[in-house]
Amino acid sequence: MKDKIPVTAIRRLSLYARMLDEFENEGKDSVSSQELGKNANIPSTQVRKDLAYFGQFGKPGKGYLVKELKLELKEILGLSHVWKIALVGAGNLGKALFSYPGFRQQGFNITAVFDSDPSKIGKNWKGIEIRHSSGLSDVIKKDGVTIGIIAVPASGAQEVADEMCKAGIKAILNFAPKRLKLVPSCSQISVDLAIELENLSYYLSKLKK
Amino acid sequence: MKDKIPVTAIRRLSLYARMLDEFENEGKDSVSSQELGKNANIPSTQVRKDLAYFGQFGKPGKGYLVKELKLELKEILGLSHVWKIALVGAGNLGKALFSYPGFRQQGFNITAVFDSDPSKIGKNWKGIEIRHSSGLSDVIKKDGVTIGIIAVPASGAQEVADEMCKAGIKAILNFAPKRLKLVPSCSQISVDLAIELENLSYYLSKLKK
Repeated sequence: MKDKIPVTAIRRLSLYARMLDEFENEGKDSVSSQELGKNANIPSTQVRKDLAYFGQFGKPGKGYLVKELKLELKEILGLSHVWKIALVGAGNLGKALFSYPGFRQQGFNITAVFDSDPSKIGKNWKGIEIRHSSGLSDVIKKDGVTIGIIAVPASGAQEVADEMCKAGIKAILNFAPKRLKLVPSCSQISVDLAIELENLSYYLSKLKK
Repeated sequence: MKDKIPVTAIRRLSLYARMLDEFENEGKDSVSSQELGKNANIPSTQVRKDLAYFGQFGKPGKGYLVKELKLELKEILGLSHVWKIALVGAGNLGKALFSYPGFRQQGFNITAVFDSDPSKIGKNWKGIEIRHSSGLSDVIKKDGVTIGIIAVPASGAQEVADEMCKAGIKAILNFAPKRLKLVPSCSQISVDLAIELENLSYYLSKLKK
């Protein structure tokens, strides 16, 4: 059953968890599926369907208990855990990801940063020293790092990914514009910025016709 | 018909176009759907289905003509056009996006950069001066900018988006961790980095159970 859950439903779960955060901050005790979907433009039927994948939450006509559902969703999303992350690539994109406030808030902790450029090695980002990529495997093994972020150019991405998976990383968030081939023990999500723009450009082209 | 094409198919179209670029560089004249899907781990049946949304390409048993199909796909994706882009947010993420080589290669041209931080205004990125956000509307109108990229914190994103749409922007690529509410004339694609990580963390949590 669990394997059939669409990736898009899991993404929406993240959105619901954030909205529940906001409702909790506003002091609300319960919310309806309409309210949960409203801010994100998601129909209430979709909200109920998404949540039903993971269990029976809420009561018909009464809605969902904000605090309870939030904790359940965070547990499902693995957000009750602190994940150690190794970032490879200390360029502009790497620095942007390192500085991204949303990561740490959700328990994603970049504990090690690597680059192969000698001019960057030894520099310090908020207490984290940038190390040479040759030390990647050792740090992953020693520190129990489970997630890797790849922010290097396309040409170097596969090599970094192979080393990460070999050293025990279980999941990679890949920003290099290249599809990676990984061993089955290693999951990947690729964020290809040019593909996002091409998607927009497709819709723009349609408008012009 | 066209409205029913899934977003994921359009994303894969971008991948096929890139692969055709590579095949052309290697001097290949024709490719099969197997070859097109192979590098991206996409089954050949999916490749044929995706392409069939857009027309009749290739011949059974003969495959696709590399150069011809590439040009067709680039036309469909709007990549035969040069798009003018305004980037708002000149922080680390903005700089990473500005420097991203994949954009310009595909005809995505960041022609204006804005920020509201006085210490950044007047600085120069490869010949593009960083301007104060108050000039955004004028530049969009004057230069015929059609795409906006938002790389500001969540708190300022909606305001920037409203101004962009009002000034005539047709599509927004949003990196702020916030869903935007836009007028119907304005499309959006949101890249929420924390949601990508949460997606990975969901799969990691499943592994541990």
